[in-house]
Amino acid sequence: MGFYLRAKKINIETGDTPKVLLNEKEALNFGIHAGDHIGLSWHNRKRIFASVNLTEKEIKPGQIGLFEEIWSKYPIRKDEIVEVAIVERPESVKAINKKLKGGVLNFEEIHSIIADIVSRRLGPVELSYFVASSFAQPYTPQELYYLTKSIAETGEQLKFPESKIVVDKHSVGGLAGNRTTMIVVPIVAAFGLYIPKTSSRAITSPSGTADTMEVLAPVGFSMKRIKQMVMKNKVCMIWGGGLNIAPADDLIIKVTRPLSLEPFDKMVVSIMAKKVAMGIKYLVIDMPVGLTSKIPTMAKANEIEKKFTYLGKRFGIKVHVEKILANEPVGRGVGPALESRDVLRVLQQKKNRPKDLENKALVLAGKLLEISGQVARGKGKSIAEEILISGKAWKKMQVVIKEQGGDSTIDSDSVALGGEYYRVLSSKVGKITAVDNKAIDEIARTLGAPSEKLAGIYLHKRIGQTVKKGSKLFTFYANRRERIALAKKAIEKISIFSIT
Amino acid sequence: MGFYLRAKKINIETGDTPKVLLNEKEALNFGIHAGDHIGLSWHNRKRIFASVNLTEKEIKPGQIGLFEEIWSKYPIRKDEIVEVAIVERPESVKAINKKLKGGVLNFEEIHSIIADIVSRRLGPVELSYFVASSFAQPYTPQELYYLTKSIAETGEQLKFPESKIVVDKHSVGGLAGNRTTMIVVPIVAAFGLYIPKTSSRAITSPSGTADTMEVLAPVGFSMKRIKQMVMKNKVCMIWGGGLNIAPADDLIIKVTRPLSLEPFDKMVVSIMAKKVAMGIKYLVIDMPVGLTSKIPTMAKANEIEKKFTYLGKRFGIKVHVEKILANEPVGRGVGPALESRDVLRVLQQKKNRPKDLENKALVLAGKLLEISGQVARGKGKSIAEEILISGKAWKKMQVVIKEQGGDSTIDSDSVALGGEYYRVLSSKVGKITAVDNKAIDEIARTLGAPSEKLAGIYLHKRIGQTVKKGSKLFTFYANRRERIALAKKAIEKISIFSIT
Repeated sequence: MGFYLRAKKINIETGDTPKVLLNEKEALNFGIHAGDHIGLSWHNRKRIFASVNLTEKEIKPGQIGLFEEIWSKYPIRKDEIVEVAIVERPESVKAINKKLKGGVLNFEEIHSIIADIVSRRLGPVELSYFVASSFAQPYTPQELYYLTKSIAETGEQLKFPESKIVVDKHSVGGLAGNRTTMIVVPIVAAFGLYIPKTSSRAITSPSGTADTMEVLAPVGFSMKRIKQMVMKNKVCMIWGGGLNIAPADDLIIKVTRPLSLEPFDKMVVSIMAKKVAMGIKYLVIDMPVGLTSKIPTMAKANEIEKKFTYLGKRFGIKVHVEKILANEPVGRGVGPALESRDVLRVLQQKKNRPKDLENKALVLAGKLLEISGQVARGKGKSIAEEILISGKAWKKMQVVIKEQGGDSTIDSDSVALGGEYYRVLSSKVGKITAVDNKAIDEIARTLGAPSEKLAGIYLHKRIGQTVKKGSKLFTFYANRRERIALAKKAIEKISIFSIT
Repeated sequence: MGFYLRAKKINIETGDTPKVLLNEKEALNFGIHAGDHIGLSWHNRKRIFASVNLTEKEIKPGQIGLFEEIWSKYPIRKDEIVEVAIVERPESVKAINKKLKGGVLNFEEIHSIIADIVSRRLGPVELSYFVASSFAQPYTPQELYYLTKSIAETGEQLKFPESKIVVDKHSVGGLAGNRTTMIVVPIVAAFGLYIPKTSSRAITSPSGTADTMEVLAPVGFSMKRIKQMVMKNKVCMIWGGGLNIAPADDLIIKVTRPLSLEPFDKMVVSIMAKKVAMGIKYLVIDMPVGLTSKIPTMAKANEIEKKFTYLGKRFGIKVHVEKILANEPVGRGVGPALESRDVLRVLQQKKNRPKDLENKALVLAGKLLEISGQVARGKGKSIAEEILISGKAWKKMQVVIKEQGGDSTIDSDSVALGGEYYRVLSSKVGKITAVDNKAIDEIARTLGAPSEKLAGIYLHKRIGQTVKKGSKLFTFYANRRERIALAKKAIEKISIFSIT
């Protein structure tokens, strides 16, 4: 059953599921109410799903208003004839219902949910029930495997020839700075492994790897270009969010935010689905453990490690989880420009390079070389170090920067920082005993990071160092004076360092 | 923190939470994204909550677009200055999170959730998590009490003087016809009890009591008018949906629909919250039990009865649950006009009155007289019968019809039915062994009920009767020929009667 209407553009972005606007009287004649889901197709295109809003005036009978999201995402012209279909409640709704009431789902059921999320057939309400179902009934390892597989398969996927050793390194996040990716990647690529690195932008932190990399070169590319780059140079360092990799993941995350929920081991599933989609075969996961980072205890870390290892086995991905007790930032800079300067100092082997960042990157790169089977156990780190010291890693990084359209002649000393700055000095004598990662994040965001790339915090001190009255503690960078003033106000309430 | 914008009307009905439209660039400058919740107030009015949509064109900086729902619900003028506030995550969100993760909630927590639902501070996503939380962790009786109390208290409430005996009769539904309310109410009012009867319109059935009553008189009145009517006549029979009684209930029901969920004994809580709000002290619940009705088994009925009794005790309401095994419609007509004709035939004591409907109404009216303590146990039904036969019940009904603005001289024979009709005759010989209530509902809706009041089905036969070839089985009524054709098509696939 369907009927035909002419498309009219509505210049409104609705921020969630695709929406259409129908003439109220006409809709009610067809038995359609506000909030109902309908199917749309035109020009024999595959059907998309949208939810219904009603109006008495804006839309005349015979018209259908399509909101901004539909026009920007699909090729459709003004006055195009759109076929509207009233849709039955999908099978996936039954599956969500079953899980919510304590059932265990099979692959077909889980796949139907994920496929309907991606096609927007399930709206925010159904998605919330899906997320909630994991609290009613925890997912079994088998279900987590089906879920990961479905999330990977309902998006674009990269396939590399069997002969290529495709590796990746992933940090679960939670530590300020910690920009090891941009050092590990050129090292392992210079060694000869394939590493199609996709990274995220910051959501709640002052910088994601994609934000930091963007200081050096553009990071937005198509899947096709990514494959070209990797087949040519063995490597790329791009933003994964613009691609259609594991698209269900972003849609699920959206409805977890209002309650800050972490359903069905969401972190493990998200990460593994993306690795499966990118064709990764060997994976090192950097898992900082500490009270102010994401994973507070070793016990919790071990539990998560088991899930990574289990899923890895099911997908034929060799996974190593590097659990590192860490309670302070890695590197000195926090914010895109300051972090990229730290990275360049290491790659260019400058005297003032942050040694902690260099060492951690070497550990992770070494592990990756070892698990790929190309380097004997225990030898990874020293081989990685050789590659770094010899300049081969920097050379590889230059290839990446150039390929992606950046300036490969950049020197760490020439990285631009915010024009306004303010040094915070110690008002007492003592020893630095703790660093608050969350305070650092908050203040760096107050200064304008990540949207203002030149903004951030440079830390002059680390845990264990002693300070005198007047010792430099940290420096704020920002583009505008007001930002500095806000940050100064913030440190009246929260402390970055504990000095005792 | 707030800022000020000028109101602009957007002629769009969005069908869920109130929505506003902001200029995209301006909103992003204020750190507001699509989907965020904001608070609005104007003219020192109490703050309301809305979710944000963005546009580049429709709204200029300095303006705020308010969708249809806000204009129709609140007094606001074009170009009125609106104060916009960015709101913190509410406490109620923490409470939902706690329940979802297995906690038990106290009164303050439950009340915060319900209050934020009513103020629209919680949107559909948060509401879905609230509904889902009862599957993660069943509500304790104590929590159900808090929930019912909160739902009743966050809406309007009627209070009657202590001396008045305020009673009610409620059917949980699920049987076609079964319009006993319109007979029970005038009987108990004629006896001298107070009965401020509110009823619902049909949602999935072909008629609700409010739809059927509306054939005889208008049913939409304010709380003030209701109290006036009841204090004057002891009785009213109105539509409860237009009032602000237990408003959280409707909002919760909305998000349960996509998955047809029945969270936290929803039915019991919904009914009891409304009775508490209406000031009821004695309550008889008609609970039809049978495979094709809502409650399939006696065991299930007993379980629900316990919850009604428990909540009744907590609120000081004496509850009697009348569990009646029933597998066929009560009365002969299905659809507003046909049902009102059945009711009038009983009240006017016509020869052709449906005896099953009369008998059931007398049983229920009798129970109500008994539990109110005004009539000895075992005597209720015969006293109710006396009131009916004497014509006092019809006289009381005439008072109600007149008070509400209908024609109190109406005779059962003068009720108008659909101009088009079609008699379905038996094509075989046998005995009627079963009736499918769901098939009756579906076909009556196909014929146009409840929106076309004159449409519906008249059943010529009941279970146990024998039929010959050519015996009249049922008659379809509709306003338009096409509707009859659709119903004829429907009975090719589904059967109303099983004849064996």
